[in-house]
Amino acid sequence: MNKEKLVCTNCGESYDKETKNFRCDKCGEPIELEEVKEGKISDGNPLGQTLLERYKDFYPSLSTENNFSLNEGFTSLVSVDDMAKEYGISGLFFKNETQNPTWSFKDRGTVTGVLRAMNLGYKKIGTVSTGNMATSVAAYGARAGLDTYILVKKGIAEEKLKPIAIYGAKLIEVEGDYSKLYDESLAIGHENDIYFINSDVPYRVEGYKTMAFEICEQLGFEAPDYVIVPTSAGGDIRGIEKGFREFYKLGLIDKLPKMVAVQASGCSPIYNAFREGKLEISRVADPETIAHAIENPYPPSGNQVLRMLKKNGGLALGVDDVDILKSQKKLASLGLFVQPASATSLAAVEKLYKEKLLKESDNVVCVLTGSGLKYTAALDEHDLDVYTCKLEELNDFIKKVGN
Amino acid sequence: MNKEKLVCTNCGESYDKETKNFRCDKCGEPIELEEVKEGKISDGNPLGQTLLERYKDFYPSLSTENNFSLNEGFTSLVSVDDMAKEYGISGLFFKNETQNPTWSFKDRGTVTGVLRAMNLGYKKIGTVSTGNMATSVAAYGARAGLDTYILVKKGIAEEKLKPIAIYGAKLIEVEGDYSKLYDESLAIGHENDIYFINSDVPYRVEGYKTMAFEICEQLGFEAPDYVIVPTSAGGDIRGIEKGFREFYKLGLIDKLPKMVAVQASGCSPIYNAFREGKLEISRVADPETIAHAIENPYPPSGNQVLRMLKKNGGLALGVDDVDILKSQKKLASLGLFVQPASATSLAAVEKLYKEKLLKESDNVVCVLTGSGLKYTAALDEHDLDVYTCKLEELNDFIKKVGN
Repeated sequence: MNKEKLVCTNCGESYDKETKNFRCDKCGEPIELEEVKEGKISDGNPLGQTLLERYKDFYPSLSTENNFSLNEGFTSLVSVDDMAKEYGISGLFFKNETQNPTWSFKDRGTVTGVLRAMNLGYKKIGTVSTGNMATSVAAYGARAGLDTYILVKKGIAEEKLKPIAIYGAKLIEVEGDYSKLYDESLAIGHENDIYFINSDVPYRVEGYKTMAFEICEQLGFEAPDYVIVPTSAGGDIRGIEKGFREFYKLGLIDKLPKMVAVQASGCSPIYNAFREGKLEISRVADPETIAHAIENPYPPSGNQVLRMLKKNGGLALGVDDVDILKSQKKLASLGLFVQPASATSLAAVEKLYKEKLLKESDNVVCVLTGSGLKYTAALDEHDLDVYTCKLEELNDFIKKVGN
Repeated sequence: MNKEKLVCTNCGESYDKETKNFRCDKCGEPIELEEVKEGKISDGNPLGQTLLERYKDFYPSLSTENNFSLNEGFTSLVSVDDMAKEYGISGLFFKNETQNPTWSFKDRGTVTGVLRAMNLGYKKIGTVSTGNMATSVAAYGARAGLDTYILVKKGIAEEKLKPIAIYGAKLIEVEGDYSKLYDESLAIGHENDIYFINSDVPYRVEGYKTMAFEICEQLGFEAPDYVIVPTSAGGDIRGIEKGFREFYKLGLIDKLPKMVAVQASGCSPIYNAFREGKLEISRVADPETIAHAIENPYPPSGNQVLRMLKKNGGLALGVDDVDILKSQKKLASLGLFVQPASATSLAAVEKLYKEKLLKESDNVVCVLTGSGLKYTAALDEHDLDVYTCKLEELNDFIKKVGN
């Protein structure tokens, strides 16, 4: 197993392995794996490969001798030409992460996180989440035969709990200040030999690189101009950007896309700071949005996302709930039913278009993070027609509604 | 566009195009496309292809100039070695169809059905279904910009309706004898220029071949010994078997797998007839099972499945609800959360094992037809543990539940 260094995203301090709280001991900012310096995509048919087999060179420190993959990744990139025309751009693409094994992008980071835990000899893993990540870690923990701890906030709806509980993890509702649970879980993990794969720990972030790798392959190694990512803790956009950066530095693509972090206006700490030209986020006091999956008032990777956007030339955006819901409906009218958080990406395209930031030659990729079936309560926000008629009147009825 | 004949699966009568009710005018049994006589898998990286690009030669009469694919298919084949050992077989694999764009296998048949409708010049499509197929046709109809009619039984739960309605199809609840709706819809379709892509129409069945093609690729062109398919109308198992047959006749694989049609004991018209050595199904009077997605009391392709199984050397099985639920939990403990209908496939493995029908050298593939998120009410049938504790007691609590 190759040794890779972990480097602080802020001060550059380097470490041989994960620190106690997965952050820099000196400045408290997130640490990440150093950039991969050499590598290529493995030969072979992706139909017979796992992600980590195909992109093996980009994970030099992960040993895949334990095969517990659920065949995450290799998701669709759906091209929508009519809508691209509508926005006056060259191409509009949706990276459909709802086609992952637990129907969200989280699986890409979970598989690398769990693998790292196993490589380090851990028998127990955990996470703090109320949604997609909880399901993902529960599923992979089950698959890998690990003792799995899922910590959620006391009081979440039962309809959200059961699809997590079915995988058989130890599911614990925690009463108290939820915002302290992220750090607290890492400390408890350290004491109890549980490797917590929280939202922006280094080996989770590292897994999201594969999304960039696939997008490059799917676009024939022409990098897009913009990649729009619904952003909560900040781990996913960091990983995706790192993936493009590694491909770029190795000459596999000839430019870097601009990264766009989109948040819901009702909870947009990263956008708030970005708009004011700051490099440090402030906690959002009363978060409120329909996009619960990205409702994080104080994202642990918030500052690093701001630093990354500055270097990358990218931007942050906030979109209103009403536009999120409109985009959710519009995506469904393309055959793509996603959770509200995912619909922020299309709302962001609309915003970029209205603000005349898009050029005719631009290719834009939107990441659709999770399935609409994850949060069906959002359907109540839409006016949806359902007709009723008697069988013997069906022929006439169809003629009527058809006109 | 190449002309392919449609042939009666029973009497062999051939047709130049679809009959009025998609069945043989002489004997009333299902018609299907004649076997493809030559072809190979297209070159190229599946990451940059659609299913119909990769397997183009196997769809000579479908023109793909309209690209409305949602990038269905190319789903995982998950290998579970520990469980294979448990059953004393060489390999056990799960074809995870929940990774399709609408989270069920139906998308494979919908894309070919919709393409056929468009090739014939139809502007309207429809289907009769209360579940996976309704969602799938609604999604693809939206994507293709077609006027889409979804007919469902009056009185189905609202939680099932809304995820169909969001795609914007004309969703009609029909009051009256639901069992007549299959035929009635085809007649109404004929009169109103609506191409109904019901459960076993020829171009839907044809789409399911791709599942077999992928399984062959994923297993390195070694055909498995058994392929177990949860069976309702009978369209899917027919299509999958035809796919293996075409690959076999073209020399791409060197044997045919035995097909296993599994049904829920509470509604098993195909299994009932098979057990009695009959080649004709009888209607099940009072269907009742938790596996609603395969609860069809009089499957339109029932007789053809019986004929196919006889020729193929395959078999039909019935499994009880209690075993279906056990299998649902067991699959979740592997990281695979599926709807109850899909869990029948693992219950069937268990049954084959208990009846000593499996050999040490056997490789078995189970088709997991649809996501567990499709029918979360089934979760109430499981005893699922959820713990509660205070944040300040979390450390002690974790030590306690850890032991």
